[in-house]
Amino acid sequence: GEVFDKELYQDNSVPGVVTGLAWTSVGGEILFIEASLSKGKGKLTLSGQLGEVMKESAMTALSYLRSKADKLGIDHRVFDNYDLHIHVPAGAVPKDGPSAGITILTAIASVYTQRKVRNRLAMTGEITLRGKVMPVGGIKEKILAAKRAGITDIILCNKNRKDLEEIDDSYLKGITFHLVDHVQEVIQLALLDELVDDSISFTFDNQRVTSGDC
Amino acid sequence: GEVFDKELYQDNSVPGVVTGLAWTSVGGEILFIEASLSKGKGKLTLSGQLGEVMKESAMTALSYLRSKADKLGIDHRVFDNYDLHIHVPAGAVPKDGPSAGITILTAIASVYTQRKVRNRLAMTGEITLRGKVMPVGGIKEKILAAKRAGITDIILCNKNRKDLEEIDDSYLKGITFHLVDHVQEVIQLALLDELVDDSISFTFDNQRVTSGDC
Amino acid sequence: GEVFDKELYQDNSVPGVVTGLAWTSVGGEILFIEASLSKGKGKLTLSGQLGEVMKESAMTALSYLRSKADKLGIDHRVFDNYDLHIHVPAGAVPKDGPSAGITILTAIASVYTQRKVRNRLAMTGEITLRGKVMPVGGIKEKILAAKRAGITDIILCNKNRKDLEEIDDSYLKGITFHLVDHVQEVIQLALLDELVDDSISFTFDNQRVTSGDC
Amino acid sequence: GEVFDKELYQDNSVPGVVTGLAWTSVGGEILFIEASLSKGKGKLTLSGQLGEVMKESAMTALSYLRSKADKLGIDHRVFDNYDLHIHVPAGAVPKDGPSAGITILTAIASVYTQRKVRNRLAMTGEITLRGKVMPVGGIKEKILAAKRAGITDIILCNKNRKDLEEIDDSYLKGITFHLVDHVQEVIQLALLDELVDDSISFTFDNQRVTSGDC
Amino acid sequence: GEVFDKELYQDNSVPGVVTGLAWTSVGGEILFIEASLSKGKGKLTLSGQLGEVMKESAMTALSYLRSKADKLGIDHRVFDNYDLHIHVPAGAVPKDGPSAGITILTAIASVYTQRKVRNRLAMTGEITLRGKVMPVGGIKEKILAAKRAGITDIILCNKNRKDLEEIDDSYLKGITFHLVDHVQEVIQLALLDELVDDSISFTFDNQRVTSGDC
Amino acid sequence: GEVFDKELYQDNSVPGVVTGLAWTSVGGEILFIEASLSKGKGKLTLSGQLGEVMKESAMTALSYLRSKADKLGIDHRVFDNYDLHIHVPAGAVPKDGPSAGITILTAIASVYTQRKVRNRLAMTGEITLRGKVMPVGGIKEKILAAKRAGITDIILCNKNRKDLEEIDDSYLKGITFHLVDHVQEVIQLALLDELVDDSISFTFDNQRVTSGDC
Ligand SMILES: [Ca+2]
Ligand SMILES: [Ca+2]
Ligand SMILES: [Ca+2]
Ligand SMILES: [Ca+2]
Ligand SMILES: [Ca+2]
Ligand SMILES: [Ca+2]
Ligand SMILES: [Ca+2]
Ligand SMILES: [Ca+2]
Ligand SMILES: [Ca+2]
Ligand SMILES: [Ca+2]
Ligand SMILES: [Ca+2]
Ligand SMILES: [Ca+2]
Repeated sequence: GEVFDKELYQDNSVPGVVTGLAWTSVGGEILFIEASLSKGKGKLTLSGQLGEVMKESAMTALSYLRSKADKLGIDHRVFDNYDLHIHVPAGAVPKDGPSAGITILTAIASVYTQRKVRNRLAMTGEITLRGKVMPVGGIKEKILAAKRAGITDIILCNKNRKDLEEIDDSYLKGITFHLVDHVQEVIQLALLDELVDDSISFTFDNQRVTSGDC
Repeated sequence: GEVFDKELYQDNSVPGVVTGLAWTSVGGEILFIEASLSKGKGKLTLSGQLGEVMKESAMTALSYLRSKADKLGIDHRVFDNYDLHIHVPAGAVPKDGPSAGITILTAIASVYTQRKVRNRLAMTGEITLRGKVMPVGGIKEKILAAKRAGITDIILCNKNRKDLEEIDDSYLKGITFHLVDHVQEVIQLALLDELVDDSISFTFDNQRVTSGDC
Repeated sequence: GEVFDKELYQDNSVPGVVTGLAWTSVGGEILFIEASLSKGKGKLTLSGQLGEVMKESAMTALSYLRSKADKLGIDHRVFDNYDLHIHVPAGAVPKDGPSAGITILTAIASVYTQRKVRNRLAMTGEITLRGKVMPVGGIKEKILAAKRAGITDIILCNKNRKDLEEIDDSYLKGITFHLVDHVQEVIQLALLDELVDDSISFTFDNQRVTSGDC
Repeated sequence: GEVFDKELYQDNSVPGVVTGLAWTSVGGEILFIEASLSKGKGKLTLSGQLGEVMKESAMTALSYLRSKADKLGIDHRVFDNYDLHIHVPAGAVPKDGPSAGITILTAIASVYTQRKVRNRLAMTGEITLRGKVMPVGGIKEKILAAKRAGITDIILCNKNRKDLEEIDDSYLKGITFHLVDHVQEVIQLALLDELVDDSISFTFDNQRVTSGDC
Repeated sequence: GEVFDKELYQDNSVPGVVTGLAWTSVGGEILFIEASLSKGKGKLTLSGQLGEVMKESAMTALSYLRSKADKLGIDHRVFDNYDLHIHVPAGAVPKDGPSAGITILTAIASVYTQRKVRNRLAMTGEITLRGKVMPVGGIKEKILAAKRAGITDIILCNKNRKDLEEIDDSYLKGITFHLVDHVQEVIQLALLDELVDDSISFTFDNQRVTSGDC
Repeated sequence: GEVFDKELYQDNSVPGVVTGLAWTSVGGEILFIEASLSKGKGKLTLSGQLGEVMKESAMTALSYLRSKADKLGIDHRVFDNYDLHIHVPAGAVPKDGPSAGITILTAIASVYTQRKVRNRLAMTGEITLRGKVMPVGGIKEKILAAKRAGITDIILCNKNRKDLEEIDDSYLKGITFHLVDHVQEVIQLALLDELVDDSISFTFDNQRVTSGDC
């Protein structure tokens, strides 16, 4: 059944919530990646009946973000001082596959930077550890689902361009497509400079002394 | 068999005990979510033969609560200095599904704030990590079970409104329905301002020095 | 085969040993819950081929006890400074179910308080996390086994009263039944004020500094 | 095949090696429990393709010993500062059951006290956590195996006395039977006061400060 | 489908990305090993649906590198202060076998030294813990895949020389083969002296005091 | 296929590499046990698709070595300050059984002492925790494999002497057999006094203060 409501992905007041596009045997669907932080010791929790490939996708997204923390203006101590939870409703529906990679990456980038996510934007694409975006399947069905839901901007892998060309133009009207090769482009497109209201002021334990270099 | 007694959910002297509504092949049923804290290191224990989806529901509820600790007046050190146990009697009956989400959330909110739970109140609904309440099934059967048990107030997801409309009014008499979209509403409805008698005075280890921000 | 001997449960010189009542396909049986402590770091070990439900029962009993440590006069540091082992002989016989709940609770209450367990007493009943005692099955068979073994007092859940009424009075003669609703009653009935001989003097590591409250 | 040699169990120069009696589909057999300690952090390793019941037996034996450390003159710090390994050759032969309980207990008592094990002694019997010795099966076959191997003393549970009475006296000649109820008797019979040559001088890390009592 | 693009393995601006050669039921294929580091505590993460043998290959490569850290000019503190992630796209495709051993070794050597990987180079070969390179199968198919992809240099085990001799010369034209016995040769061939742009300046926690020797 | 080359086991410049003898359905085979150390915290890694019995063999060998560290001149701090990896090529071939016990023991004794392993030596035999060497099967096939490979010395368990007597003398010519009862003999035969070139100078963290004894 259709359990999501339009208002949801038009609301970007909460950090860490990003709209993805899934493809199941019965067609395309909107899904949400939710990421949240709480004071802790750096534990990662994944929930929403995620399969093994999707869990690896999340770990890959997190590793990419951590390795690029400096460039994104993220204090690396946040990774050890806050627990990260990634949840994908609905909780009882099994989900798998690598196509939520860029969506997960965007959700955790938003929650760690506390930057707002662009409105009415959806995305689908696999990521690799070096940040490359890779093409995924079910593009036509995903676009139809996005349209039904009022989405106006979709981020796809550049290599999915040929899938767009095979779709009748009437289906594409009203949506702006952003074709990308690298997750840096995804973040630039998806995250606003503006912070969310009530953004977290991260605080850290001060136990470690750092020194040396090479 | 019917192993629960009415007196139980009319007694809110114990924190962390909240009445839920379950739906099995043989009809609706009352169930209790029990949460308790003991001095420890932040370990989470789940018992009562809970399935994987229900465990994830509990983790999602806990993450939501931890990320909103400040707003709920919970000192975040309590999460590291006390162990949390969530149990769902009867111990030998397998249980699963996401519909106890708001019930679990309310139970742990009560035990961490030591606030009393409202009398004769039951609830059913899935939660997501950002606090959204989602609709669940078996509404009619659950309401019948609640009535038999003397419940006077039921919290449901706003999107379950259509299920109510399909039920004959005679069944709904005597129960006040609270339709909600967000768990903040659930907490406001379910938790009294009054603390339980003999409420815990939380104490903390003082080992960490906090500093810095971003 | 019958491997237990009468003298055993007439001997309460050892703390942490409590007589329970089990119900198998071949009738009722006496069993013993053994709990012991040794200097350690708070590890819990369960042995005796216990099934998942029985293990959860033990964890629930322990959580209840820990959350009520103050009321029972137990210094909470004992939970972190001693390892707890719960064993149920015979070691090769698989056991499961929630009905040993109050027996396990009594065994660990005895070992943490070093109080003697009442002589010739047996018990059966599920516990919940808030300390409620719940009814269990096989009452008739369990009573017969207790009689054969020389038991004079049996603790049951109040809700098992109807099972007693269905048993011919001749079977009940010579046994005093204690019907309870809450584990506080169980502890009061089962534990003597007197400490065992050679009771442990608990000692603690002194590493943590406690402070603050809320 | 017969892979053990007589000289072995006539040599008690090594601590922690005790002769047990096993019973398989093809008759009785001698087996050896080997226990060794090495500087570490209190890790327990079990090897020799041991089944779940036998592993629980070992944990029960260890818990008993730890809880009685004072009485046996064992400095409790040794449990945290040395790793314990229990191995049962032959390494490729699966073994299970509770009957090696007292043999394992004796092996680890020897290695922690560095006391010699009595010569030409074998034993078989289950232990419980409070130190009770329980009867086991296959007594006749085990005795025959012990005789073939030159054993002169066998420790059995008192409740196995009836098994002895059913065996023709000619089979029992030349062996002294020690019937026991409690593991304290086993230790007294099996361990000599004399330490092994080259006994370990235990040393401890000195990080913890102990204080308080109750 | 063909999801890789040529430009990728001609770009060595990113450290830790090395081109391997895989052999599946449908022929040879190019694959990429991606390794990345982020500030952490030395955790190893493997992703990309790797089978058990391939995971062991990665652990063997890492152990080799760690044991030779001094010779490669790697400060050993980097292993405890940075987390290593190894990912092999595409994320949903299961992969197994030992033949990526030298490719993984090269990827992690690059990321720990921040040295550039040689352009248009591919490799295939098992490694052992002492650094020996062992021959692998599917050489002909792998070479064809490399040619299609524009590879100009291939590293193989010396013992795969006979496989080359069985291939028609026309297939080998345009590719330089480097036959090696030891991973030291692989590293010398594959890693340039030049560091990548924006190379990481490793920093370390300073908690440990080192002393003594033997 | 035959993937090993003669030169390998004639080269003892690398510590921790020892030649073993395996017996498969297709005859005897040479195999290598590789052990390596890297600065760490005492982690043990086993790879090469080892079965459960072979892993237990490795743990038994390591426990024996640790418990005899003083006698072998090994500073016990090395076990906590270095990670040990044991690998058995070829990486994709499953291996199991206890017969590599003495080979593994010799490999780790070499790597912890940095002593050279004797040239052209192979061995096969199970070990027990007290250091006893036990006989193994497939002796004839193993000897043939050793001869083909240029081995000149073989260590066997004394109890395998009868297997030698059943082999035609022509097969034994050119090989010296060393029949042993205890691993001390194995170490004495297999390890040279000479250290390897570039032997590791072990260094230790200095965090622990040791005191007391018994
Ligand atoms: Ca869920
Ligand atoms: Ca998607
Ligand atoms: Ca339970
Ligand atoms: Ca419910
Ligand atoms: Ca047992
Ligand atoms: Ca073994
Ligand atoms: Ca035995
Ligand atoms: Ca992936
Ligand atoms: Ca490859
Ligand atoms: Ca072998
Ligand atoms: Ca491998
Ligand atoms: Ca071997």
